[in-house]
Amino acid sequence: MILVHTPNPKEVATYLELFRAAMPEQLFVDVNEACLNAVRYLIVWGVPDGLIASLPRLEAIFALGAGVDKLLGRADLPDGMPLYRLLDSGMAGQMTEYVRYGVLGYQRNMDVYRRQQAAGQWRMLAPRPPADVHVGILGLGEIGTAVAKALVRDGYPVSGWSRSPKHIHSVHSLHGESGLEKLLETSQVVACLLPSTPQTRGLLNGERLSLMQPGSMLINAGRGDLVDQNALLALLNNGHLRCAQLDVFAVEPLPHGHPLWHHPSVTVTPHIAAITLRQEAVAQIVGKLRQLARGEEADGRVQRQQGY
Amino acid sequence: MILVHTPNPKEVATYLELFRAAMPEQLFVDVNEACLNAVRYLIVWGVPDGLIASLPRLEAIFALGAGVDKLLGRADLPDGMPLYRLLDSGMAGQMTEYVRYGVLGYQRNMDVYRRQQAAGQWRMLAPRPPADVHVGILGLGEIGTAVAKALVRDGYPVSGWSRSPKHIHSVHSLHGESGLEKLLETSQVVACLLPSTPQTRGLLNGERLSLMQPGSMLINAGRGDLVDQNALLALLNNGHLRCAQLDVFAVEPLPHGHPLWHHPSVTVTPHIAAITLRQEAVAQIVGKLRQLARGEEADGRVQRQQGY
Repeated sequence: MILVHTPNPKEVATYLELFRAAMPEQLFVDVNEACLNAVRYLIVWGVPDGLIASLPRLEAIFALGAGVDKLLGRADLPDGMPLYRLLDSGMAGQMTEYVRYGVLGYQRNMDVYRRQQAAGQWRMLAPRPPADVHVGILGLGEIGTAVAKALVRDGYPVSGWSRSPKHIHSVHSLHGESGLEKLLETSQVVACLLPSTPQTRGLLNGERLSLMQPGSMLINAGRGDLVDQNALLALLNNGHLRCAQLDVFAVEPLPHGHPLWHHPSVTVTPHIAAITLRQEAVAQIVGKLRQLARGEEADGRVQRQQGY
Repeated sequence: MILVHTPNPKEVATYLELFRAAMPEQLFVDVNEACLNAVRYLIVWGVPDGLIASLPRLEAIFALGAGVDKLLGRADLPDGMPLYRLLDSGMAGQMTEYVRYGVLGYQRNMDVYRRQQAAGQWRMLAPRPPADVHVGILGLGEIGTAVAKALVRDGYPVSGWSRSPKHIHSVHSLHGESGLEKLLETSQVVACLLPSTPQTRGLLNGERLSLMQPGSMLINAGRGDLVDQNALLALLNNGHLRCAQLDVFAVEPLPHGHPLWHHPSVTVTPHIAAITLRQEAVAQIVGKLRQLARGEEADGRVQRQQGY
C-alpha cells in the first residue's frame, strides 16, 4: 500500500487518479483510506506531525518536489529511511524561463523603464548586448546546469558555482569560497538556485552580497534562508544593488507589510519559479517504484549529509 | 562628398569617425563642413526642412534606420530619388529580446504577480507551458521572421501575418484580411512589428482589436499609428485584454498625463525595442556604398509604393 499525502485534499485526489492510471498493479490511497500498518511507501509534500511515526512498515519516502530541506529538518524522520526527491519534473524548463525573464529584463533595462514609467519619464537608455551582461549561477545541479546552458545559448557569458567542480560547455565553473567571491565580484546578475542545506543557509550574508558589483541584480529562486534579507534590503536602499527578483523568502508567504512587498526595485513572486508538474512527478515516482520493485536502487536518493 | 546628419551633433561626430575609419577613400562630412553642391549621398535620420532641396547633386539617401515612413511622408523627397533603409543592423536580435520578454512575462503571469505584489497578495497561479501560449506576429520581414523563429525555438506555437505568403519552418503563415482575423482570434499574444505604410496605418482599430481572445496581450513594437490607442485602452479597461507592452505611440514621446502612462496593465517603453547599433549601421551602409561604386544595385532599396 502506497500512501499519497499533501496538505491539499483536491491535489491528493488528482495525484491518486494519476498514480492509479500509471501503475494499476499497486494500491495508492489517501490518509483516510490507508490501513496505516500496511503502508510501505509514502509519497508526500508537507508531512503532518505524527504521520511518519504511525507507519510501522514504511520502507521509503518519495518527496513530491526537488527541495527536501524541510523534510530533512524533521525530528521524526527515522535515521536510514531511504528518501527520494524529484530530479527534474519539468522544473528545469520553468526555472530557465524564470531566470531568463530576470536576466533579460536587467539587460534591456525593463526595471529602469518601469520606474521611469511610474514617473511619466520618457528617456532612452543605451542598448546593451547580451555579451556585456555576465551571469553567475549559484548551484549547478540538474536545474542550474539547464539554466546555465540556456543562458549561454542566449549569448550571455555565464559562470557557475557548485560544491564540486563541473564541466559544462562554455560555462566557467567555480567552487570553494574563493570561487564564490569571484562569481559575486564578476557577475552583473547573480541567480541563486541552491538548495537549503547546513552548508548553504545564510550563504549570501551582508558581507558576501556587498561583493556584488555596483548596479547589479540578485535573483533568488533557491531558498529564502540562503539570503540575509535585511542586508539585501540595505544594499538595495543604498543603491549598491540595482534590483532583485525574489521567489523565495525567509518566511513564506512573505508577511504582510514586509518592506520587500513594496520596494520599487524588487519583484516578488509567490514561490512559483518552478512548480512540480504533476504528470511529470507521477511518471518519475512510478519509475522509481519500478526500479525498487526490480530490486535496483532508485534515482534521486537523497544523501542526507549533503542535504539533497 | 557624403553628408551625414542626425538631430544630435554628438551622434553625427561618432558616425563620422566610424564612416571615415571604414571607408577612408570617401569624404564624409557634417552639415557645417559640407559643400552642398558637392554632396552626392545623404546618410540621415530626421531630415531637417530644406536640406534635401539644398543638395542639387544628390544621387541617393541612406536612412539610419529600418523604418522610413517619416521620410516617405515628406513633400520635399524628389520622385525617383533612390532611398535605402537598414535591413537588420543588430535590430532583429534586440526585437527578439523585446518580444520574448513580453511573451515570457505573459506565459509566466509576471504581469499578474506584479499587480498582486502591489496589493501585497501571495497567490500562486497554475503554471502554463510555452506550448499553451499561441503567439501571433504581425509582420514577417527580416526582423519579424527572426522573432518568429526564436519563439518557435522557445516552444511557443507561432503564427505570422504578412502582405505576401511566407514559408518559415514551423511558423503558420497567414495573409490577407481573413488571415489577419484568424491570427487575432487564435493568438494569446499578438506582437505587432509592421512598418507604417498607407496599408497598415490604423490596421489595429477597435473592431480588429476586439477579435483578440479574452485575456490576451498586445505587444506593439512596430509603429504607434498602427493601433487605435483609445480602442486599446477601452479593451484594457473593460478587461477584454489582460495587458499590453508598448514601445511605440501615436505621438512620441507619449504626452504627459496620457492614460497609458499610468495604466496598471500597460508597460510603456520609450521606443527602445530595437535601436540602430551604430557599428552595424555603418558596416551596412558602407557595404551599400561599395555596391553602388561597383555599379551594382545596393541592398535595402525602398519600394516607395509598398512603403518599405
